[in-house]
Amino acid sequence: PPAPSPDVETLAAQIRAGNRAMLARGITLVESRKAAHRDKARALLQLLLPFTGKAHRVGITGVPGVGKSTTIDTLGSNLTAAGHRVAVLAVDPSSTRTGGSILGDKTRMERLATDPNAFIRPSPSAGTLGGVAAKTRETMLLCEAAGFDVILVETVGIGQSETTVADMVDFFLVLMLPGAGDELQGIKKGVLEIADMIAVNKADGDGALRARSAAADYRGALHILAPRSPTWTPPVITISGLANQGLDEMWRQVELHRDRMTASGELQARRARQQVAWMWDMLQQRMMEALTRDPARAARIKALEAAVRDGDVAVSVAVEEIAGLMGI
Amino acid sequence: PPAPSPDVETLAAQIRAGNRAMLARGITLVESRKAAHRDKARALLQLLLPFTGKAHRVGITGVPGVGKSTTIDTLGSNLTAAGHRVAVLAVDPSSTRTGGSILGDKTRMERLATDPNAFIRPSPSAGTLGGVAAKTRETMLLCEAAGFDVILVETVGIGQSETTVADMVDFFLVLMLPGAGDELQGIKKGVLEIADMIAVNKADGDGALRARSAAADYRGALHILAPRSPTWTPPVITISGLANQGLDEMWRQVELHRDRMTASGELQARRARQQVAWMWDMLQQRMMEALTRDPARAARIKALEAAVRDGDVAVSVAVEEIAGLMGI
Repeated sequence: PPAPSPDVETLAAQIRAGNRAMLARGITLVESRKAAHRDKARALLQLLLPFTGKAHRVGITGVPGVGKSTTIDTLGSNLTAAGHRVAVLAVDPSSTRTGGSILGDKTRMERLATDPNAFIRPSPSAGTLGGVAAKTRETMLLCEAAGFDVILVETVGIGQSETTVADMVDFFLVLMLPGAGDELQGIKKGVLEIADMIAVNKADGDGALRARSAAADYRGALHILAPRSPTWTPPVITISGLANQGLDEMWRQVELHRDRMTASGELQARRARQQVAWMWDMLQQRMMEALTRDPARAARIKALEAAVRDGDVAVSVAVEEIAGLMGI
Repeated sequence: PPAPSPDVETLAAQIRAGNRAMLARGITLVESRKAAHRDKARALLQLLLPFTGKAHRVGITGVPGVGKSTTIDTLGSNLTAAGHRVAVLAVDPSSTRTGGSILGDKTRMERLATDPNAFIRPSPSAGTLGGVAAKTRETMLLCEAAGFDVILVETVGIGQSETTVADMVDFFLVLMLPGAGDELQGIKKGVLEIADMIAVNKADGDGALRARSAAADYRGALHILAPRSPTWTPPVITISGLANQGLDEMWRQVELHRDRMTASGELQARRARQQVAWMWDMLQQRMMEALTRDPARAARIKALEAAVRDGDVAVSVAVEEIAGLMGI
């Protein structure tokens, strides 16, 4: 039989002491949808809050096949070798449909999976993208309290997931494939604009030349966009996650970014903004859940939505009726 | 003394008959924040809904100084000369602070202001961007019911206003200044990605060459982004609003876009999506208003927000308390 559930103070103390089994339990608690668990998860988070925020939070995205797992495996191993403790999390919107996860198979990151200074956690799999993201943010806080000083949040670029991850990290890294023309056409809208750095991967062997050519094209594209920060122009570099080439320079840029953004106060401001936006997002989710909890009410709202879509009911009329259903 | 307020059926009939004074009254009703007026406005919108949706809805943005007013004045005059009836609306987020409006001075559009087949309405000036946008959408519906078959929605690119306007129109036109380099650097993030066409203005006299050069640069930039629609690649053209050069070609592209998007079903799908998104936006605004109506509750929420921003209270703890305040 499983060991009895520790009380929340014990759990918090064990997580702070670096107990991995207790960290995993804490994350399971945070991911649970049961009301009693949510109460306990909130208490845990509030207890651990003073010990969070010290990690370097880095988001990593790229299309399937770009080599995210290999690159994270190599980068993470470099970082633990240099004395860091690295947690790898994921936001995988497809897992909300399939129950599977891009990080479900730890063998994708062979070295990190057995590295005592690394911790890999697959994407939470229940709920909307917003729900998955909220749980990943809370997991990030638990990992920070457990002493991990680098958090890598991986996402495969589906729908809004890049923006969601960019909104929870200090630095957003976009991995690209070498090769110009057709590949460039596939850049997802908006991804260039939230990138703090672009790394063209697979710049080894035959790919080296094509990667450099692609990097020049991306530099041109970034040049045309107004930089997001006055103190940071996103660099474009070439790397090979497989051959461990360019990853030290890549991480040097990540650290340079943090140093500059800390000095200018932008890092603190970014985090403060993220926290507040997260609060309102969660509240909105909560209201939507409350709104559709009653099946009859949910059905009526669905019907009104369809009538609005088809142009049969004016938007303001539908909103008035739904507001009435909510008693506001 | 002002004439007594007509009942809503009379108002609707008069608007459909093209009575401009009654159209202006209907818009004032729609813009009013008084509860009794909101009831009447909803009834009016529901009555007129079957007669809406037939206009070509075009959003136009560009930085101050790009020549929006001059271009709209010339374009609108071309369109009325060709038999169209043109309504010019605006979404001006700055008007929510100053009470003023980018369209407050009708003399900015000298010809259209006295054109019997044109109707110019300044931006509503009360409330948030979402509130302003909701009123502009409703005004658009009234103008359609009044027989205007082209609706031009102007916005100066502040904050999220371009996205907001792009989300209420069929076609989103971005006006740019000629000149490469520094000017290109100023492209606001995201604007290229929602543009259905870019028109480089002031391509007359000395500006012609520079405008063509800028257009080539923008074409390069657009080329690098994946097109938003499989049936439409945003063209980049050069125009002179002042000299009435290129505006016919510009409008031909707008019509070509509509024809293709109608044939592919994308136009109908875009409008259906817009309607549903609008409903949820309005509902969210409504909930936020309800949430902060009580001053004590509003103050507590503000305090919680500050505590979350400063990292003193966990997000989930704050959300739980606010949800409790709301009784959900």
